[in-house]
Amino acid sequence: MSAPLFEPRDPAFEPRVRASFGRQSAMATLGAKLQRVEAGRVEIELPFAEHITQQHGFVHGGVVSAVLDSACGYAASSLMPAEAGVLTIEFKVNLLAPAQGRRFRVVGEVVKPGRTITVSEGRAWSVDDEGREKLVASMVATMMVVTGRDGIQH
Amino acid sequence: MSAPLFEPRDPAFEPRVRASFGRQSAMATLGAKLQRVEAGRVEIELPFAEHITQQHGFVHGGVVSAVLDSACGYAASSLMPAEAGVLTIEFKVNLLAPAQGRRFRVVGEVVKPGRTITVSEGRAWSVDDEGREKLVASMVATMMVVTGRDGIQH
Amino acid sequence: MSAPLFEPRDPAFEPRVRASFGRQSAMATLGAKLQRVEAGRVEIELPFAEHITQQHGFVHGGVVSAVLDSACGYAASSLMPAEAGVLTIEFKVNLLAPAQGRRFRVVGEVVKPGRTITVSEGRAWSVDDEGREKLVASMVATMMVVTGRDGIQH
Amino acid sequence: MSAPLFEPRDPAFEPRVRASFGRQSAMATLGAKLQRVEAGRVEIELPFAEHITQQHGFVHGGVVSAVLDSACGYAASSLMPAEAGVLTIEFKVNLLAPAQGRRFRVVGEVVKPGRTITVSEGRAWSVDDEGREKLVASMVATMMVVTGRDGIQH
Repeated sequence: MSAPLFEPRDPAFEPRVRASFGRQSAMATLGAKLQRVEAGRVEIELPFAEHITQQHGFVHGGVVSAVLDSACGYAASSLMPAEAGVLTIEFKVNLLAPAQGRRFRVVGEVVKPGRTITVSEGRAWSVDDEGREKLVASMVATMMVVTGRDGIQH
Repeated sequence: MSAPLFEPRDPAFEPRVRASFGRQSAMATLGAKLQRVEAGRVEIELPFAEHITQQHGFVHGGVVSAVLDSACGYAASSLMPAEAGVLTIEFKVNLLAPAQGRRFRVVGEVVKPGRTITVSEGRAWSVDDEGREKLVASMVATMMVVTGRDGIQH
Repeated sequence: MSAPLFEPRDPAFEPRVRASFGRQSAMATLGAKLQRVEAGRVEIELPFAEHITQQHGFVHGGVVSAVLDSACGYAASSLMPAEAGVLTIEFKVNLLAPAQGRRFRVVGEVVKPGRTITVSEGRAWSVDDEGREKLVASMVATMMVVTGRDGIQH
Repeated sequence: MSAPLFEPRDPAFEPRVRASFGRQSAMATLGAKLQRVEAGRVEIELPFAEHITQQHGFVHGGVVSAVLDSACGYAASSLMPAEAGVLTIEFKVNLLAPAQGRRFRVVGEVVKPGRTITVSEGRAWSVDDEGREKLVASMVATMMVVTGRDGIQH
């Protein structure tokens, strides 16, 4: 997954994405923190925490998926015009290994930008105390651009 | 999605599923409450709450997906032997409408039970103040049965 | 999967769908035959044949998927205005059992019709010599409506 | 999608994969030709042909998917013990652009090999008369290893 180069249509995409992420209460609840924001690529960190686990003590796969969804969505959003909104219409996730570790590095990247439909891919790696990474989940997500609909922006 | 009839291998599946759900801290964090538990079918309620929203004030699609994942997983688990564990290996969700409403009714049902692989389908409906329901998301999830692996049970 | 009732926007949807299916050389190559065409629901028959098998002598899962894709796409198309085109933007298929049998009954149904995006679900059953059916595959497919693009119609 | 390096468990994986592909009548029917076979990576060529088109004259998305499924499955199979069989349990495909072109280059690669479950990713590019490539489809596929089941081998 080497990042393709994209030309952003909104030069101020980074503060726009950061402000929108800041309004996602769900990400704050899960403890997810926005890291790098590039044109077509977004990285989020999710620290391990007990309040997001499932019954075996791993992070809940659905929680990893929610963070991947945000990463994929903001990767798409970064390439959009300033006034456009982005809605995830579907995603598919493969949970490749139990989500154990000190923290998780979650990356979303645009594979195919489009006028109406944009497709992103995501990867989540667990990171242990020594900084060693292991791939734990992958995602493909399809996003739709929405313009001129009240309440759906950024 | 009319529930097929399944014969549970563990007659005590209901308390087992309820105890396991009770250990999913992530579900408590999101506010999800386990409702009915039948053989091959599980229903969860998710009340609307500000701490699980995305930037437009709807419930985050990834949060709806996480609850659907639990519903699909426990539907599969209800048909398993007492000592088996169930891991979601992948799922796909379609977000059909914005997750607005007073609360959400989330149902997971087994489509195809198997010795190693079980496939479940999920549906999430928003429910408004008058009790009217609207389909907001659908899921297909593939679960693997795990036996004899330490730490992966129930 | 009980068919919801939909109101077609094009009263002449059935001959339009049948004519378009007739132009899908791929379906003729595979031996697929269009059966019932209703508003939001399409049924296709695929007879077992040696030229569509994989290495174990079952029908190739990708072939079953291709027929499911056509069934899901035409279910969506049946609800569209006469001049609109429908493109599959993504689908996900679960292959639930080996595709053995005398023939296969493949059904696509619209779950959520929309102005831009329509979601359909498909099911494929094998049918044996005594007419007994067994579910062998399920699909979820996302279709986009395309209007005013040369060469993409019906 | 840079190929990770895998150590094959069966040193004779290449002739085994080629022989099995040769028994897939469906691939011969579609005109697909096996090209490179490496440990964890398989490449197939699909020439454009009228008998595999849909109603607009592009190659049917389901046909592209069927070839991607074979590429992903044989990528998984290349890493298996000689006596194991591989079954696709599910796949998801995104059709990113109309499948137009002189021919198509279809690649499947293993992302996560496993004892029971292996996950592969696929890409399909159209190739025009000048050799220029364009990404037209991507796949994620989940495969299950099957051993000791009569009739399911290689």
